[in-house]
Amino acid sequence: MNAATPAPSFDVVGIGNAIVDVMAPIEDDALVALGMARGGMTLIDTGQARQLYEAMGPAREISGGSAANTLAGLASLGAKCAFIGQVADDQLGEVFAHDIRATGIQFDVTARAGDPPTARCLIFVSPDGQRTMNTYLGASQFLPAEALDPALIADAKILYLEGYLWDPEEPRAAMKQAITAARGAGREVAFTLSDAFVIARHGDDFRALIDAGQIQVLFANEHELAALTGCEDFDTGLAALAPKVATLVVTRSERGAVAVSGGKHAYVQAEPVDQVVDTTGAGDMFAAGFLHARVGGRSLADCLKAGAICAAEIISHYGARPEADLKALLAEKLG
Amino acid sequence: MNAATPAPSFDVVGIGNAIVDVMAPIEDDALVALGMARGGMTLIDTGQARQLYEAMGPAREISGGSAANTLAGLASLGAKCAFIGQVADDQLGEVFAHDIRATGIQFDVTARAGDPPTARCLIFVSPDGQRTMNTYLGASQFLPAEALDPALIADAKILYLEGYLWDPEEPRAAMKQAITAARGAGREVAFTLSDAFVIARHGDDFRALIDAGQIQVLFANEHELAALTGCEDFDTGLAALAPKVATLVVTRSERGAVAVSGGKHAYVQAEPVDQVVDTTGAGDMFAAGFLHARVGGRSLADCLKAGAICAAEIISHYGARPEADLKALLAEKLG
Repeated sequence: MNAATPAPSFDVVGIGNAIVDVMAPIEDDALVALGMARGGMTLIDTGQARQLYEAMGPAREISGGSAANTLAGLASLGAKCAFIGQVADDQLGEVFAHDIRATGIQFDVTARAGDPPTARCLIFVSPDGQRTMNTYLGASQFLPAEALDPALIADAKILYLEGYLWDPEEPRAAMKQAITAARGAGREVAFTLSDAFVIARHGDDFRALIDAGQIQVLFANEHELAALTGCEDFDTGLAALAPKVATLVVTRSERGAVAVSGGKHAYVQAEPVDQVVDTTGAGDMFAAGFLHARVGGRSLADCLKAGAICAAEIISHYGARPEADLKALLAEKLG
Repeated sequence: MNAATPAPSFDVVGIGNAIVDVMAPIEDDALVALGMARGGMTLIDTGQARQLYEAMGPAREISGGSAANTLAGLASLGAKCAFIGQVADDQLGEVFAHDIRATGIQFDVTARAGDPPTARCLIFVSPDGQRTMNTYLGASQFLPAEALDPALIADAKILYLEGYLWDPEEPRAAMKQAITAARGAGREVAFTLSDAFVIARHGDDFRALIDAGQIQVLFANEHELAALTGCEDFDTGLAALAPKVATLVVTRSERGAVAVSGGKHAYVQAEPVDQVVDTTGAGDMFAAGFLHARVGGRSLADCLKAGAICAAEIISHYGARPEADLKALLAEKLG
């Protein structure tokens, strides 16, 4: 990097699972009968996917994937984004690719031929809007390091990564390379911890990255904060983690969210919604609002507020991709 | 048929296109720019499907198909139904089969191997809720006559057919056989005219069936009534057609619906809705409510009211499959 380096072409380049969500309502007693952990994310294999799908009511299909959802939100807000993730060469892969490109996001990864098929997430939505996810990773876990274009990563202000993708080996290696490429170009790395059980499996990796100063913006919910820090007490966990990243953002569902950056704290209340229909994508959309405001040079409090506004939009309807014009929504509510 | 004939096992067996709807909002000026006829149904080929899909915004996939939607409504109301339609052996075919079986409908037609893929309908939804449909028939047009089980058709009180399926040759032949099987077993045939342009193509066939007394319950909207009878004036058309079928039902969107049966007329106002979100499936769900009440031996006025209640549910959200518990809704509003 020197003074002659041109400004990056992209605001955010994201790497994540390329998933189509298959969503249906469920009563909580049926959820228990099916042996699912309410509110969690469980990885499932082909047999489990078939079995659960058979037990599922009439469903709808909407593109998903955590980082992909965040990018869809960012694109809806006007940010220039590129997505890296692996679909198979099948109908659900076409659906995913169509939906992400239709939001204006660059998506150039070649669909993978043959088995396994494109990833899907069977999402059961409880009457109170809580979502319980069962993810069949399929092709998504075979994202090869070669799918990464280091020039593209160097050409974005922020590299955004999802913890979910740390499970499969190839994408994990690819993300580590991506972090090196981004940091080498002087870019920021934003990371979402995704899920407490992912941290149970890969916490050492995550802590090592954080300790090495590789993560500039870290997103977590309170369960993930506790899992990563080992501190049951929220404030203790926050105080332990905050000094290790430039910006720490912790979402607390209906209790709002906090951020710590350079020793400064900010807090936002949850944005009121008429009815919580489906919480799928709440954290993803919070990250979208936060990052968009951050790229726009807004204050820490404004970044949180933007996150809360976007999260409120997504939980007011089925599916993790925005339906409202988020740009207009932010202009109206944040100014 | 004699006194020893057992009561039919099914309330309704339906034959129709096996389609997955791909739905996205659109502004009306964009609709015009894409050369689409607002509110219509156009058959498209592979190339047009690709082109239109590329022009479409981020979408969601929800099972559709006119008769299949009606059966899904009937099943939600507690009716015992079977569906006959052709999917391909692909992911969208799995989606369609899952969704229809998950509503409790018997669906036994073997998925068709190889090309073409499962049918899809690209549906553009205008801000006022009007839907404009572009149907790629794919595998659906290859429903073979052998897919029909005459014993199944004889075992249902009502055979329900959609006019849309009259376009492709094989299903048309299959439906004609089905009518013969149903009438031979003393069952009623219910038919929905589907679309004015379908009538332009196949009106002679439809009129011949009606004149031969093969249709007991005929569903039309006012445009279809005009197309079939050649009468621009609504009352003239109604008077011309009504004597030829046991029961004629004509829906008029926000102006309600009329039915004529055995010389008696009944009328229902449109059921009020907070917001018309998406009119896709309004006619299909009207037919579901009407047929369910009819099978239950309700009055003609009650049949219309049941139709209006079900249609109001479907236009208050995206997609042509019911989201609310229609049974509870009817119990509350019709008693």
